[in-house]
Amino acid sequence: MANQMSRRDMLKMGMVGAGALALSSVNASASALNEKDVKFDEEWDVIIIGSGFAGLAAGLTAAKKGNKVLILEKMGRIGGNSVINGGGMSVPMNPVQAKTGIKDSKELFMADCLKAGLGINHPELLETLADRGMDAFNFLVENGVQFKMDHCAHFGGHTVARSMLTTNDSGSGYIQPMLERFEKADGCKLARRTKFDDFVLDDKGRVVGVVVREEYKFDDKLYSDDLENTSGTKKTLKAKKGVVLAAGGFCRDKIYRKLQDPRIPDSVDSTNHAGATAGALLKAFELGAYPVQVDWIQFGPWASPDEKGFGTAPILTQQGTFKYGIAVDVRTGKRFMNELADRKTRADAEFKILREKPDAFPITFADDKCFRDLSPEVVQKGMASGKLVGVCKSIDEIASKYGVPADALKESVKKYNEGVKAKKDEFGKQESALFEINEAGPFYVIRLSPKPHHTMGGLKINTKAQVLSSKTNKPIDGLYAAGEITGGTHGASRLGTVAITDCIVFGMIAGENI
Amino acid sequence: MANQMSRRDMLKMGMVGAGALALSSVNASASALNEKDVKFDEEWDVIIIGSGFAGLAAGLTAAKKGNKVLILEKMGRIGGNSVINGGGMSVPMNPVQAKTGIKDSKELFMADCLKAGLGINHPELLETLADRGMDAFNFLVENGVQFKMDHCAHFGGHTVARSMLTTNDSGSGYIQPMLERFEKADGCKLARRTKFDDFVLDDKGRVVGVVVREEYKFDDKLYSDDLENTSGTKKTLKAKKGVVLAAGGFCRDKIYRKLQDPRIPDSVDSTNHAGATAGALLKAFELGAYPVQVDWIQFGPWASPDEKGFGTAPILTQQGTFKYGIAVDVRTGKRFMNELADRKTRADAEFKILREKPDAFPITFADDKCFRDLSPEVVQKGMASGKLVGVCKSIDEIASKYGVPADALKESVKKYNEGVKAKKDEFGKQESALFEINEAGPFYVIRLSPKPHHTMGGLKINTKAQVLSSKTNKPIDGLYAAGEITGGTHGASRLGTVAITDCIVFGMIAGENI
Repeated sequence: MANQMSRRDMLKMGMVGAGALALSSVNASASALNEKDVKFDEEWDVIIIGSGFAGLAAGLTAAKKGNKVLILEKMGRIGGNSVINGGGMSVPMNPVQAKTGIKDSKELFMADCLKAGLGINHPELLETLADRGMDAFNFLVENGVQFKMDHCAHFGGHTVARSMLTTNDSGSGYIQPMLERFEKADGCKLARRTKFDDFVLDDKGRVVGVVVREEYKFDDKLYSDDLENTSGTKKTLKAKKGVVLAAGGFCRDKIYRKLQDPRIPDSVDSTNHAGATAGALLKAFELGAYPVQVDWIQFGPWASPDEKGFGTAPILTQQGTFKYGIAVDVRTGKRFMNELADRKTRADAEFKILREKPDAFPITFADDKCFRDLSPEVVQKGMASGKLVGVCKSIDEIASKYGVPADALKESVKKYNEGVKAKKDEFGKQESALFEINEAGPFYVIRLSPKPHHTMGGLKINTKAQVLSSKTNKPIDGLYAAGEITGGTHGASRLGTVAITDCIVFGMIAGENI
Repeated sequence: MANQMSRRDMLKMGMVGAGALALSSVNASASALNEKDVKFDEEWDVIIIGSGFAGLAAGLTAAKKGNKVLILEKMGRIGGNSVINGGGMSVPMNPVQAKTGIKDSKELFMADCLKAGLGINHPELLETLADRGMDAFNFLVENGVQFKMDHCAHFGGHTVARSMLTTNDSGSGYIQPMLERFEKADGCKLARRTKFDDFVLDDKGRVVGVVVREEYKFDDKLYSDDLENTSGTKKTLKAKKGVVLAAGGFCRDKIYRKLQDPRIPDSVDSTNHAGATAGALLKAFELGAYPVQVDWIQFGPWASPDEKGFGTAPILTQQGTFKYGIAVDVRTGKRFMNELADRKTRADAEFKILREKPDAFPITFADDKCFRDLSPEVVQKGMASGKLVGVCKSIDEIASKYGVPADALKESVKKYNEGVKAKKDEFGKQESALFEINEAGPFYVIRLSPKPHHTMGGLKINTKAQVLSSKTNKPIDGLYAAGEITGGTHGASRLGTVAITDCIVFGMIAGENI
């Protein structure tokens, strides 16, 4: 078994050498090094692990205060999951809501999050998102992020439309401008292919540096890159003011995700980039950081089996077919969920079908007005493969192409349209998202399959983004965290577009406080 | 705030002295000591943390192989939660089932556990319980535990009756005989008031000892005994063959249980003994043990607000009023759950009522045959306070005493009895537990309130009871665990009476392998 690779197996595969020996000393020894036992190769004010939304927000904020900041990214490309994100950001009480007459409040935002999170969200963290959401939005605008200023998007589980969108409908709309500014900041650097391996502490337990490997080559083919990859050259870096963990979640960690949910087979696809593993999180647990709600793994109910990874389906469905159309069970031709319910509710509804019949992927479709809110580039990208989006002239064509009973399918569309007219949907879809489907077509059709998307649990932070220690129930000196590596904010299930809010708000706060 | 006690606060309270300084060095420094830096005061083969079911099973098994075993118990009394447990133990395919014609199987047992556990149970651990359940039963009989051999009990969520009961209907029926034998074993000792503080490792990361405090005085009045209690005298003990963690769960840890479920107020009662805190678990995380499914906290749906702690209600309801009677919502007089559903289903049903009206505790009642399966001592104990069990001559008396609409209540009993006759219960109560209620009375009535009862998550162990390390995905040399401190076996919700099976099977396995 690859996950129990012996030294002999490693020898067979030619993996043992100086690198392997260095690795084993990093991984198997007592946790964390003492600064007295190391020689620092470089000295920085602030070191940040991860170059996504949270890492860049922390980096820019810390840099603005005059700090010499180093951001470490283990992959060859920057931005982790952030850069492949759909780009929606929940900002309660934002100016576009004001302009378009949408009433929102801190209480409404928190109630929506708590409902999806099954009530186990940490309230003080949610409150911070509401209180600092507009600060985060302004911070992004100052740093060159371009938002659509004509409307907010209404994502599943939110009572009102409150999600700001970038003009390019992508997380890259945040990462690119933030990265450009960060790399221009005085004395700051973003180091690619540089892997965090361990912490360096002083005698009082304060985090004062990190051990890393430069020229790291992440290897997607290994069962566990964190445990098996021996590439790179070791360096020890001093972080005078502290370290920020912004390393993201673990949806691609075959070992740790299966420990939390043994139903996830190793073969299952994920919306996440290949580097989304638990390594940094687990190292922080060794320091005494509290593990919080680590077993809640969110599946994206808007993903498609007809493309790899995150893909384009999430945006084409969320802002397209789910809003302007319906989803049906191909076995019956009937609807089976509120297409805009929270993620857990929808993923559970899809899983129910797929557990009964593993290849009966539900379909979602709408008529040709469905992509009108999206930028043409995104729609083009979605259509390009010819495999993701099916174009059908009629309901009969959908029925024959996807193996759905035609009469039942027609009846479902008719019934939905009646609900739209009566302003009362049988599955409780929000009135603001009820649009008649033109029964004459043409139609755009996408198959659905839930994919592991977000790991809700992680490190416990306080409202200053400080990581709390189980040894004292107080902050670990010199250690901050933000984004998906933290736990508690989202409870059992994160609402769509709250991730960016979480990452930017707490990234910014980490940068302010460090 | 008590949970953020400063040094100044401690000074005010007269808590700072030599003890406090020793504590701060134990808690705030880097984790685990190296054997080169310590001097061992005593030397043992095996050291076990915790004196409940798992600890004693491990201790007896290790002792039988000729080991010099020390069991550490931080409290003044032994047995932790085990000794206040109701004493039921799931043993699939046991001889009493055979004698009474109950068909059971490994598959059925696993399916029941997986259903309650929402499918996230670790299958290899469940499988071990089924495979070794009878070994554990035989081990207990050999060690003097006396079981009722005329019938098995049918607990909520189990498809069939498979729970063996001790003749005294209490966990003490296991603890007392096991303790007696253990204390007679050559070279073995059980040390009360001895608190585990930290691990001692060798250069390769093997666990070779522990740091403890003798003459420890657990203090229930502290917000966190683990973090604030400075009592005791430090000793360092060598464990030549290893350490077994059998320290139980954390239902009484106000800090850690609230991090996992922020809805649990500090004031809430629990079925657990006061010492059920997370200290040992968190220390193991610092060694690199994987945290698994730590946020699933089970509430006992059979607890009563009319007594403290675990009390007698669990047994009086489980084997009494729930089996021979019904539970109703006092506001409506109607039933609201299958009285023998799994714990999560029932606790959620009760919480739904209590969230709508916090003082509307549901009631359960049955006629006077309801306690016939119980020993007279237990019934007497339950009746003793005069507060827990209400005796009512008629349905009208129940209605007036508990504020229930009388007509609706009569109708509920009538409807239930019709279901019994038709062998079809409206809430799906098992046919084998359908008994007509004598409408003439008299009745025994108990009010219900869910209490935190079991923490499902914890350390990841393999089927040899070895604790796995996140640094290697292999066992931590010299470290074993069993019982509630481990995670994964029960998934999201443990079925009643599987705890003892879990503790004895894995305690025994730890003892066999160490």
